[in-house]
Formats: sequence, C-alpha cells, structure tokens
Amino acid sequence: MAASAEPVPALSPLDRAAALDASDPLRAFRDQFVIADPGLVYVDGNSLGRLPKATVERLSRVVEAEWGGELIRAWDHWLDEPARVGDLIAPLIGAAPSQVIVSDSTTVNFYKLAVAALDARPGRRAVITDRDNFPTDRYVLEGLARARDLVIDWLEPDPIDGPTTDAVAAALARHDGDVALVTLTHVNYRSAAIADMAAITQLAHDAGALVLWDLSHSAGAVNVALDEADVDLAVGCTYKFLCGGPGAPAYLYVAGALQDELRNPIQGWFGQRDQFAMAQGYDPAPGIVQWLAGTPGIIALAAVEEGVRLVAEAGIDRIRAKGIALTTFAIELVDTELAPLGFSVGSPRDPAARGAHVAIRHPDAKRLTAALIDGGVVPDFREPDSIRFGMSPLTTTFTEIARGVEQLARLAG
Amino acid sequence: MAASAEPVPALSPLDRAAALDASDPLRAFRDQFVIADPGLVYVDGNSLGRLPKATVERLSRVVEAEWGGELIRAWDHWLDEPARVGDLIAPLIGAAPSQVIVSDSTTVNFYKLAVAALDARPGRRAVITDRDNFPTDRYVLEGLARARDLVIDWLEPDPIDGPTTDAVAAALARHDGDVALVTLTHVNYRSAAIADMAAITQLAHDAGALVLWDLSHSAGAVNVALDEADVDLAVGCTYKFLCGGPGAPAYLYVAGALQDELRNPIQGWFGQRDQFAMAQGYDPAPGIVQWLAGTPGIIALAAVEEGVRLVAEAGIDRIRAKGIALTTFAIELVDTELAPLGFSVGSPRDPAARGAHVAIRHPDAKRLTAALIDGGVVPDFREPDSIRFGMSPLTTTFTEIARGVEQLARLAG
Repeated sequence: MAASAEPVPALSPLDRAAALDASDPLRAFRDQFVIADPGLVYVDGNSLGRLPKATVERLSRVVEAEWGGELIRAWDHWLDEPARVGDLIAPLIGAAPSQVIVSDSTTVNFYKLAVAALDARPGRRAVITDRDNFPTDRYVLEGLARARDLVIDWLEPDPIDGPTTDAVAAALARHDGDVALVTLTHVNYRSAAIADMAAITQLAHDAGALVLWDLSHSAGAVNVALDEADVDLAVGCTYKFLCGGPGAPAYLYVAGALQDELRNPIQGWFGQRDQFAMAQGYDPAPGIVQWLAGTPGIIALAAVEEGVRLVAEAGIDRIRAKGIALTTFAIELVDTELAPLGFSVGSPRDPAARGAHVAIRHPDAKRLTAALIDGGVVPDFREPDSIRFGMSPLTTTFTEIARGVEQLARLAG
Repeated sequence: MAASAEPVPALSPLDRAAALDASDPLRAFRDQFVIADPGLVYVDGNSLGRLPKATVERLSRVVEAEWGGELIRAWDHWLDEPARVGDLIAPLIGAAPSQVIVSDSTTVNFYKLAVAALDARPGRRAVITDRDNFPTDRYVLEGLARARDLVIDWLEPDPIDGPTTDAVAAALARHDGDVALVTLTHVNYRSAAIADMAAITQLAHDAGALVLWDLSHSAGAVNVALDEADVDLAVGCTYKFLCGGPGAPAYLYVAGALQDELRNPIQGWFGQRDQFAMAQGYDPAPGIVQWLAGTPGIIALAAVEEGVRLVAEAGIDRIRAKGIALTTFAIELVDTELAPLGFSVGSPRDPAARGAHVAIRHPDAKRLTAALIDGGVVPDFREPDSIRFGMSPLTTTFTEIARGVEQLARLAG
C-alpha cells in the first residue's frame, strides 16, 4: 500500500501549540502569576506585564506591615531600595553592580541622562536618533533641542529593520566632531528590530559622542550587554517584561566611570550626600545614588522587586530562547494563516534581529485590534497599521498565540 | 473655711488631653486609619501620614482586579487618574478645577515649574528664595543657577518666623527688574512658620516675576488660597498630611492663564496631545495635562486618591482648627513641662502664623529623638536642634502629645 508514502497530515496550529507548551521549560512560571481569566488571550505583556502572585503578598506586607505598622521608621530599610532593586536589574542588562538605580519614569530618566550627556559635551550641537524611536524619547529630545539650540539628525529607518549601523555612521560623518549624543531604542517598540548596540556605541565613541540606549522593550526579553558594549548611559521601564506593575518606576544606568564626571540636572535631596544633614549647598552623593531626584515611590518599588526577581529566577538565556520560539511560531502562523487574508509580518524574520514581540500588519489593523479585544484577545495597535502581539516569555503560551491568530483570521476572513 | 478660695488643682496634661480628645469633632476620623500599635505615640504624620483603611482595600482592588484582571484594558480609566486626583486636591489648596495634576515627585515637579518660569522670563537672571527652604528646593535651584548662570538671592530668615514679606521686597529691590522667580515654601518644614503667600505673590508680580510655592507642609493642614492669592505655580507632596503613602506621587499647580503660555521642559508622551497617535513632533496637550511627563504610577495614585478623599471629607476648616488646637496644646506643654529642662519652642507662637507641627528645640535634640523613638514615641529630628512634633489633625490625639512630652521630660530630666 502507498499509505506510508502519503504526507502525514499537518498538525493544526492549536495542536502544535499544545505540544510546544507541553515541552516549554519555563511553563511552570506561568503558575507564579495571577491568571484571573484563563480564557483570555493576553498578548500585551510587552505593554503591561502580568501580576506575579508574590507581588500581591509583598504589596500587602509593604502597605499593612511597613507603612501601616512601622510608619516612618520603615525608611531605615526603604532608603536602600532604589539601589538594591537596581542591583537586581543590573545582571539582566549586562551591568556590574552599582550602575543601575530605580527612579522616576523612563521619560524623566531619559531627560536627566540626555541633559547630563549634552552638558558633558559642551560646544557640540548635534544629536542623532531615529524617526521610529519611541515617542517619549523623541519628544524629550525635541524639547532639549529647542531649549539648547541643538540639531537633531533624524534617521529614517526601515519600518521593519530599524536604524542601521551604516546610517548612524553616515550621520556621525555628516556632523563631524559636532555630535554630542547618539540615542536609540535597543528593541524597536513597533517592529521589535534589535539595533546593534555594540557597533553603534563604538562608532559614537570614535566620534567623541556619548550614547544613551532605551531598553524598555529589551530588559527581561533579550540579552543586553551594557558593560561589554561599553555603553555610557541607558534607561528602561519596568512595567513591561519585568512585570513591575502599571506605571512602575523606571531604571537608569550610568557607567561607573561616568557616574561622578556627569551631573544629574535635577539636583534632588535623594541625590545629596548625607541627605538628612539638610545642609546648605548641593553635594552629589557618590556613585549611582546621585542619579536619584525626589522621594522614591516605595510601594511601587516593592512591586518592581518582585517582578524582577521572577525574571532573574527564570534566567535571561531561557527567557530569550522562549521569546525566539514564541515569535518564530507567531511569524509562521502569520505566513500560513494570515498572509492569504492580506496580513504581513512587520518584524524582522531573523530571530537574532528581533525582540519578543511581532508586528502583524494590515490596512485595517486599528479596527481589527478593537474587535480582537472585544472577543477576549488582547494585543495592541500601533500606528499606522500594526497589530502588536507581545510575548512575555514567563506567561505567554503558544496556545494563546494560536488562538489569537485563529481569531484574527476569523475576523478578517 | 477658706478652701473655696484656694486654686482648683490644675488638671494634669494627660487629663486635659483626655478631655480635649473627648470633645474633638474630628475624633471619629482616627477610626478610619490603621492603628497597628495603639500604644505608639506617632507625632510624625507630617513626614509620613498614617495608612487609611480604605487604602488597604483600594490597593488590593487596583492590584488584583485592575492590574491582575483587567490588565492593559484598565488604562481606559487609569489615563484620567492624574487629572482626576488633581481635581480632588484642588479645593484643598484653593484652586479651581483643571489646574492641579498628580505627577512625578515634588522635586521633579519643582524642577519642571522652575524651568518653565525661568524660560518665561528670558533675560532675567535672579531668583529669590531662602536658606531655610526645604533642601530639595534649594538643591534644584542651585542646579539651575549653575546651568543657566543665575544669581540666587538667599534670604536669611529668622529660624522661627521664616522669611518676611519685607525681606522679599528688599531682595526684589536689590535686583530691580532682574528677578525671574520668587520661590518659597509656604509652611516651613522645621519651624512651621507660614509665609504671607498673598503679599509676597503680589510683590513678585509687581516686579514682573513669577512665583512658585511649595505646599508640602501646607496641603491638608492649613488653608491655602492659590487662586485668590493669584499664585502662578505651586507644587506639593502627598505623603504627609494627605496620607498618600511612602514616596507617593506629588502634585503641581499651574494657574489656568499660564498653562498654555508656559512650557513643560520635560516633554513626555503623557503631556502630548493625542498621545497614542505617537506622531512626529511634540504638540503639548491643552491645559494641565501638558505638565505630565512619563507614565504615571497607577498603584500609588490610587493610594493618593483615598488619602485625599478623607481629608476632603473632614474639610480643611475643621482640620485647620484642630491643627491649631493641637499645636497650641503642644506649645503650652513645652512651656510648662519642658522649658524648665532646657527646651524651647522653635515655632511661631501666633497660631495664625504656624502650620500643623511644632519644633521643640534642645541642644541634645538628636540623641533625645533617638531615645524617644526607642521608647515608642516617634517624632523626627531636624538639624541642628529641633525635635519636630507633627500633628496630623485626622489621626493625632491630644493624648499622644501629652504622652510624648511626658516621655521627653523623663528622658531629659
């Protein structure tokens, strides 16, 4: 009989997903998160990571036992929290200790570090960034350009592949000796393209410029090697892959060698040496502590610590491997299930060049996203035409992706 | 018999306190707070206000139902939260709606508004403040003076009575036509002296300068009339009398007429018109929303809302009356019980010139504060020689003050 020569019937996407979930080495981590509605397909963990169960307990302790019970006396241990949580984040982004601190929002941290960098390169008037950089980074830079009479050289990157190293080199050459700062997002918020951090940093340094990287879509999703790449400055948010909670405080990185050379423009009392002397004259605290500004939000910091702890426990290599598996699976399904319906992949196909989310492009993406959400599939929409499926390696299942794609096919079919 | 002509034996401080507590019209409010250790004398509510019971419930809802359950979809209602809570704070500080927003820390808000004011007075190089202003305000100003080549005219106020209106007038005259900004704290953090907001604002305006008031020790403790005093700009913290929790986000006020004329120097995506268009080019949102920067901390904001709600429910007039009663009682006890032991009152004796805390001065104040805390009486120490008894009118009892003073007398006796 010829039966054995016939092709094995292909497994359905849902069957393949189930098999992938069953063999997922990180699958136990999902149980450490609150899954309020097991039927929900949540592919937006890159906008707001899920709630760790440990965070529920920790917050109740911080609120009731510490705030409620210890009251002001809890500041004895709260004071160290920004640096302590910073040191937990550091290994996730390839930083040795004492170079990362949790503070303010990504926007405010970006502002502080950008100003510090510009101040450290007096006389230089150019800043290099790209048009697809995250809006808040672009807006902050525009404000600084206006205030300081700077020129921003806006790279016009490929919408899928992001800014190239060659484009940065060309821009540096255009402003020979005049570039103070090169600042880019490491993993693009829409396409997930990964910029070549080491090469771009090297080029910037060769031109005498400083670099400032935004790691918001990187930390907890992909490998980052700040120290190895000789990065000067970086910022990032904690409410995405680090699962720190809505609007959780952000972090900043200042390379050890620059911590005392550069100045925090927002000279707050939490950056002051011997803060409670309340003395005359600002005297910056040594090291990374200078980069704090006002009183840190303690409840939110505790939540960040719990999220970061889970990411650290899983390990960034395993997280990265699962992120690649999830996004690869998503792209395969876009090709097989959605491409015939007018969708296309808006993210790099090379897994090494792609973070942990996938943009699925469609002319009617905005309406389709709203319809998906109504039906219990939660991605997000990004202008002009992307439905963004974010894969949070600790919580997203292959089954969620298969169900999300299935639903999208149904809506567009 | 002459017995009837003899003086009635004076009631002990504790008996007087008990009587005052019994007739306190706000006494029921204490039951709305978590009192973990009823034996603790907590006179530091002006550093960290107590935990409202409603906050415990609210935070559990925000964390578990909203973050855990609604996930990213909760942003539909979270987005309005900074302005909504701002509008709850507004009447407590004499501001009409749409002029207050909750955002960042006091330090960052102070920086944003100070820069905006300086930018609005180009060419003017002088800033007036005082040496006893809260450290973070002083440090921020020093940073700005350094960056922008400004002159700070440091008033040297009386350590008890704070900066006088005359001193401000003299400083304005010294820098005739060159003052960009007058910035002071309304209630001094150490002595509780109240500055004359209306008169100083008027003087500054007459000289063409803008004013920026720090209300950190005012809001929720004393009457503030920003609109009536024609104030331009103000900031304040929410973790003191507003009971918003440790490091809770602060608020800022920008007078309606200035909201679109002035520019937020930290141009973040939460201050952008049509934020999720993520378009090219910063275009400030109309009104108070421009003054946001990055993503607001939602959990902390919810806590602020609950604290503010309680203050609003009690009403600022009743709060002020109790604050005067508490501080008056404390001063009486310092005079009768502590003055013979070498203590003196470090706060204005005129209740109209005093906020809701009392500085008790003693050469050995630092050691005594530590000993008090070890014995379950929690004030704080402020350099160089003040033990600060903070009265949080919603939670501090007269009995706590009497017990605190009694303990202090015992330690120093």
